[in-house]
Amino acid sequence: MELMIPLKSGKAISMYEQIYAYIKEEIRQGAMEAGMRLPSTRVLAENLNVSRSTTQMAYDQLVAEGYVEALPNRGYFVLGMEALFEAEQEPPGTFIPKKEGEKSGTEIDFSPRGIDLTHFPYNVWRKLTRNTLVEDNKEMFLTGSPQGEPALREAIKGYLHSARGVRCAGEQIIIGAGNEYLLMLLYQILGTERVIAMENPTYKQAYRVFESLGYGIVPVGMDGLGMDIRALRNSRADIAYVMPSHQYPTGIVMPVGRRQELLKWAGEKKGRYLIEDDYDSEFRYKGRPIPALQGLDKAGKVIYMGTFSKSIAPAIRVGYMVLPRPLLEIYRERLGFYASTVSRIDQNVIYQFLTDGYYERHLNRMRAIYKGKHDLLLGQLRKLEDDFEICGEHAGLHILLANKKGRTEKWLVERAGEKGAKVYGLSSYFISRPCDSRPGTVLLGYARLSEEEILKGAELLQEAWKEK
Amino acid sequence: MELMIPLKSGKAISMYEQIYAYIKEEIRQGAMEAGMRLPSTRVLAENLNVSRSTTQMAYDQLVAEGYVEALPNRGYFVLGMEALFEAEQEPPGTFIPKKEGEKSGTEIDFSPRGIDLTHFPYNVWRKLTRNTLVEDNKEMFLTGSPQGEPALREAIKGYLHSARGVRCAGEQIIIGAGNEYLLMLLYQILGTERVIAMENPTYKQAYRVFESLGYGIVPVGMDGLGMDIRALRNSRADIAYVMPSHQYPTGIVMPVGRRQELLKWAGEKKGRYLIEDDYDSEFRYKGRPIPALQGLDKAGKVIYMGTFSKSIAPAIRVGYMVLPRPLLEIYRERLGFYASTVSRIDQNVIYQFLTDGYYERHLNRMRAIYKGKHDLLLGQLRKLEDDFEICGEHAGLHILLANKKGRTEKWLVERAGEKGAKVYGLSSYFISRPCDSRPGTVLLGYARLSEEEILKGAELLQEAWKEK
Repeated sequence: MELMIPLKSGKAISMYEQIYAYIKEEIRQGAMEAGMRLPSTRVLAENLNVSRSTTQMAYDQLVAEGYVEALPNRGYFVLGMEALFEAEQEPPGTFIPKKEGEKSGTEIDFSPRGIDLTHFPYNVWRKLTRNTLVEDNKEMFLTGSPQGEPALREAIKGYLHSARGVRCAGEQIIIGAGNEYLLMLLYQILGTERVIAMENPTYKQAYRVFESLGYGIVPVGMDGLGMDIRALRNSRADIAYVMPSHQYPTGIVMPVGRRQELLKWAGEKKGRYLIEDDYDSEFRYKGRPIPALQGLDKAGKVIYMGTFSKSIAPAIRVGYMVLPRPLLEIYRERLGFYASTVSRIDQNVIYQFLTDGYYERHLNRMRAIYKGKHDLLLGQLRKLEDDFEICGEHAGLHILLANKKGRTEKWLVERAGEKGAKVYGLSSYFISRPCDSRPGTVLLGYARLSEEEILKGAELLQEAWKEK
Repeated sequence: MELMIPLKSGKAISMYEQIYAYIKEEIRQGAMEAGMRLPSTRVLAENLNVSRSTTQMAYDQLVAEGYVEALPNRGYFVLGMEALFEAEQEPPGTFIPKKEGEKSGTEIDFSPRGIDLTHFPYNVWRKLTRNTLVEDNKEMFLTGSPQGEPALREAIKGYLHSARGVRCAGEQIIIGAGNEYLLMLLYQILGTERVIAMENPTYKQAYRVFESLGYGIVPVGMDGLGMDIRALRNSRADIAYVMPSHQYPTGIVMPVGRRQELLKWAGEKKGRYLIEDDYDSEFRYKGRPIPALQGLDKAGKVIYMGTFSKSIAPAIRVGYMVLPRPLLEIYRERLGFYASTVSRIDQNVIYQFLTDGYYERHLNRMRAIYKGKHDLLLGQLRKLEDDFEICGEHAGLHILLANKKGRTEKWLVERAGEKGAKVYGLSSYFISRPCDSRPGTVLLGYARLSEEEILKGAELLQEAWKEK
């Protein structure tokens, strides 16, 4: 058989690749059938007027990819294969991506998410990043400790001890790319057949993680002190996910008595644990910070979780959890193979940020800035006190308003929207809506708003909600 | 009741905190009992000779933390709480951390893991990081797209198309902090009740992820062409995890015929998928790269996974996967709430690295360097060809040696170890050891070794394994 392969000179595609591509296509089209013998590399080279090494390279590639077989002393043969599997491909362009956010006539968005980044110390971050990337720091590009850099873990331990009353060793800390990832790890540590009790309403991101992983989830109602212990006791849950220092979204601070009851519940049965999500405890504007539940725990029942997303920046993607020792042992034994999800460069920058005093300074500054915004908004909202109860103030990055005049959440959100102020209904934070008809309640976040926007927004709300 | 609180002046701890801490401790110790009325803030202030706002702050904090209750017009009362839950804490220091690696007399470590970082373009990386952190780039610190930055996804799409023959849109790509994390996502996309077929032997990290998540795992044997299709058909697996372009650890390249059979298997039943792990396809030293299986797939059955851990650096922690559209829709609908696990700064640096031509240059350079090491080692190993079969050469970062003289793997590893060369037995990559007695086989990685070390190591192996 003679192969007439139309070859193009020039550098774009090498000769051997043209030969390879031609024969491959012939085989794929069925023009060369299984068992057919190819001309020898010598003959083909002579026919095409190329060097024999060129035809040899083309044949080698065809052999490597499995289109052709080389039989010693016999030559090259086209290989048989399953008829090319060509099922129907869905027509292109049928996929309509979801809208990432709605455009609207909103003037002031009281989103409870997001933080104020206008005061982020960009220059410091740049400097620390440069410091990390100095010439003799090449190990930054090698795989580090699965739990995170030991030095950073020690720094976090020190911070947690002094600022949050958390008692742990650095080796109990696991650093990860965000708390959602850490919850996925925790799922594998705790075992896949668990039932989780969550405060209702709760932080929906965590709820979605548990749901998506297939955990059973029990919504447990709250009273003014936090999760209802009797309801927890009556549930089949063996893990409780709580935010004792500043519950999201209600802003409730769990008093020490309720904390003790929770710890007691956890201690009564092997395998019970509390997950303490301490997501925004850095920001409290009245008195001392509320200490973490973990610090009260003497029996190793609390899994403590924290994050730099709110206190530094969301895109930093660094969170951490503190494992009780029995869970740490399970982690090391069964999950120690997971490489850290945070680059060592990023870890090193955060380490310097913490240990060189920048973090404390940044927190103090942001606390003052947020307190200013909080006080301003709260002052304006006092004008609404005849019609609304104000809750969840003095901490975090949002305030709640509960209507006392029987207005529904829907009414509040819609009326505000009509005036150009976007507020967020509490009901979307419920896992299951309780049957009692609570007062219409909305969340007002202020972290990303300027003072002017807060004043303007409060004005819009007064107009929107004024009772005739 | 009069409270005598020993107060220290000075700045270390403020007065109000001393008062707060004292009363809190008294309550915790039981010295102040539930229901007890505290002195009024005015009386306490007079007794202690501090301002009334100081005692007010102390009481507010005690109320916030739940130790004390404020009753309007009646005063402050100690709250009752569950007896402090004080279970036995395990004595400190009982935890013995596992050794992270054994010290030994090893001179030359042929580890198949790790890459050569001595030629990493540190200066470029520094420069690109500086570019990313310029003053007017503040959105880098805000939350980005959950799937990863659109620009980086487009760049990866372009690279995958030209270098790997992968056909996809940028919107099908999901960027994550390493492939282990992406497998956790995939677990939630595919559903938690799946059975996965894995090549046996296989990449143990992926095996551990699936195992840890609770998937059923079926080890499927391999012949010289890859995963045994008949065994796959006889299994109850509906997902197959394969490395067609360069199987780890065997180095087998799956020929196109076997690929077609795999695609056919996947197409025969709804819900069947192939996971193609294309972990080190960048490095092939003979002929063209072997195209990805994904490029042959016309029915949306292949989930393609790639990583920058080998081609840039392990600590970068960036991998990506390409989802078929039906799975993309599930991801967007159910998992779109997950924030990206890679910081936007890192994503932007990699984006520049890819689009400014640095990546291609770096790959070409590393391919030449690895080829040099590969050729050097292969040349030395030829001296062992009477006793060993060489396999898995011409690609990746390791070579396999299979003994032809009936020596066991254990003998090979131990003898080499005695001479100071660490080699890695193939058996540790098996999920279940097949009952047939294969020849003793070891892996020799060379990426991290210098030329001198390769020569020295090969010499040690010849001494260790010489047959009298």
